[in-house]
Amino acid sequence: MTRPVIAFITDFGTRDHYAGSMKGVVLSICPEATIVDITHKIPPHDVLAGALELVAVYKYFPKGTIFLVVIDPGVGSGRRALVVDTGEFRFVVPDNGLMTLVCRELPPTKIIEVIDQRYTLPAVSQTFEGRDRFAPVAAWIAKGIQLQDLGESVKDYKKIEIPEVILLEKSIKGTVLRVDHFGNLVTNINRSNFEKLASNGPVEVMIDGKSIGPIVSTYSDVNKGQLCALFGSTGHLEVAANGVSVIEKFGLSFGTEVSVAKLS
Amino acid sequence: MTRPVIAFITDFGTRDHYAGSMKGVVLSICPEATIVDITHKIPPHDVLAGALELVAVYKYFPKGTIFLVVIDPGVGSGRRALVVDTGEFRFVVPDNGLMTLVCRELPPTKIIEVIDQRYTLPAVSQTFEGRDRFAPVAAWIAKGIQLQDLGESVKDYKKIEIPEVILLEKSIKGTVLRVDHFGNLVTNINRSNFEKLASNGPVEVMIDGKSIGPIVSTYSDVNKGQLCALFGSTGHLEVAANGVSVIEKFGLSFGTEVSVAKLS
Amino acid sequence: MTRPVIAFITDFGTRDHYAGSMKGVVLSICPEATIVDITHKIPPHDVLAGALELVAVYKYFPKGTIFLVVIDPGVGSGRRALVVDTGEFRFVVPDNGLMTLVCRELPPTKIIEVIDQRYTLPAVSQTFEGRDRFAPVAAWIAKGIQLQDLGESVKDYKKIEIPEVILLEKSIKGTVLRVDHFGNLVTNINRSNFEKLASNGPVEVMIDGKSIGPIVSTYSDVNKGQLCALFGSTGHLEVAANGVSVIEKFGLSFGTEVSVAKLS
Repeated sequence: MTRPVIAFITDFGTRDHYAGSMKGVVLSICPEATIVDITHKIPPHDVLAGALELVAVYKYFPKGTIFLVVIDPGVGSGRRALVVDTGEFRFVVPDNGLMTLVCRELPPTKIIEVIDQRYTLPAVSQTFEGRDRFAPVAAWIAKGIQLQDLGESVKDYKKIEIPEVILLEKSIKGTVLRVDHFGNLVTNINRSNFEKLASNGPVEVMIDGKSIGPIVSTYSDVNKGQLCALFGSTGHLEVAANGVSVIEKFGLSFGTEVSVAKLS
Repeated sequence: MTRPVIAFITDFGTRDHYAGSMKGVVLSICPEATIVDITHKIPPHDVLAGALELVAVYKYFPKGTIFLVVIDPGVGSGRRALVVDTGEFRFVVPDNGLMTLVCRELPPTKIIEVIDQRYTLPAVSQTFEGRDRFAPVAAWIAKGIQLQDLGESVKDYKKIEIPEVILLEKSIKGTVLRVDHFGNLVTNINRSNFEKLASNGPVEVMIDGKSIGPIVSTYSDVNKGQLCALFGSTGHLEVAANGVSVIEKFGLSFGTEVSVAKLS
Repeated sequence: MTRPVIAFITDFGTRDHYAGSMKGVVLSICPEATIVDITHKIPPHDVLAGALELVAVYKYFPKGTIFLVVIDPGVGSGRRALVVDTGEFRFVVPDNGLMTLVCRELPPTKIIEVIDQRYTLPAVSQTFEGRDRFAPVAAWIAKGIQLQDLGESVKDYKKIEIPEVILLEKSIKGTVLRVDHFGNLVTNINRSNFEKLASNGPVEVMIDGKSIGPIVSTYSDVNKGQLCALFGSTGHLEVAANGVSVIEKFGLSFGTEVSVAKLS
């Protein structure tokens, strides 16, 4: 029998015991679970960053994976704890917008507000529900309990505003939403936005008002250290520099305007 | 059958191969082990920090878990290698004080000094006993060998001094022992210290000589960026600031005095 | 039956979803795999650093381990994707020199260039072959496919230049190749180099032109904070300082000259 997979995305970092405590709780309830660390380095309290990493990664996991996603600035307050079921996957999350982007791709088939205290630890800390509420719930789901046993079915979940592209007749204006470990800048411009504009003539990509030329295929299409624009691995327009960090070398980062403009 | 769990706490970092070598050694001896990374980011050589993370986390793991805890400033010297058995858990550690806090909660039922060379790697490096001695010992325990086969029963283990609170008639004086990833300051004042003072009248919490008011329940009880005092997830008094790092915003850190004083 | 082990070394960092996506792909194809994180913190694009960590760690893993090593500055370009079989281990790598040091110790018994598209994801991103090509290939090998099904047998693999020691009559000149998490400086001088010189008389170790005395056994053989030279856990001459970081305290780092000289 296949072991259930529980995949973690948190902002707890890897220095303290926090993520480790959650793993201990999971294995205490469901010893047969396979725990996968996706990342514990979402910037503290950054729900948008969590939502972006989650939507980029979930589709590469086996069907049935349970995602335990805890970026929880409202810990201990009244915000709800949810299990979002999309048929293929289950997501255990605080209700603060983390599901915004996944649910655009996978409409939920069921959303449960976690209420039943049989499936949390006996005492729930008001500063660490990741350990005392979310981790045990994920583990009980892995054990095979029915989602409706966890609490009440609800209809809605919180959505956060995601900066959207502006589509004009001769250009697309976007913004840098994500800066990765390599210093690449990932924008909110996707292939379908781009192709509407680029299908009938040459375009150039501008960052912070300066042209960096047409789209290339991969980093090594330009000289070492040179800026380029390409479609990265999540299908979004990305500004990179071959072999170097765009943040470090060019001082450009999160929130920089990136646009695509028709040349003629 | 449940797979044995070996949970790692080290100061080896995650950049070098060190923790990976230990994992390889464990899986070579006990392929059925489930390896859990708690943290590899204890500050180098900081035994107190290791002891604090260990005592905060061990109780959330399944009974039977083997903790492999290697913060080892005395590597290669004469310091002993121990296996501490508390009945529910086994701890494989250099004898340097790492067990001080756990053993206050769980008195050892047996302590073995590791001597038998059949259970280490054939050559033991004098700079990396984590790989050559502690990891194989943990794996052999997971395989089910008897602890007494590893060496000799001993009575004592090294204890380190833990800064203690000072209980006065009208106040408690404590100190910041741990600073976490979020920049929260965790003190050595626990609930039972606090309740003795607070049971018969209002109190205020002072940090570095300034009042930050009474205890709150969770971060969001105060405005964003405001300092507050609360009991954190390990049951200790903690100074935090809603949504921001106390270290970064207020410049307070490890060793700062925190006290609780009666108001009247 | 023993579960197949897939051990990861990458430069993807632990902040983004990149390593997590690779894990998801592996578990989608081979749910029974045990995934081991060795490190994701090879400095970006640093093939030499990857080769050094790999050669230090592979021998501690169980026979049969599949190493998935992705440091890939040439992603999306024409560089080949290889599976290198050494009989005991299989290595899935971009062909850029990562295997240089392992193959000095373990000559390959078979090298396959990955060509068959049945064993990659349906669409292969030109910026993230780790996810779309290397991870699925590693997982299919873990599933038990024959290596020759993946592509074509080739004879050669790329080698990179590794800085070599200079052996003179009265001295050995080496260099710092690796700086670890503790701030220890690991050189390219190995025991056999050293013993040729040291077998018939006393020697001293010089770093950056200054003597730090003879070889010691372990860090605590010198006073706290004092520089010393010893053979570290990979069998190479290492310059360390008891309890402190050589980089931080002495400003010495990668590329510093280290030599061993006869005293008389």
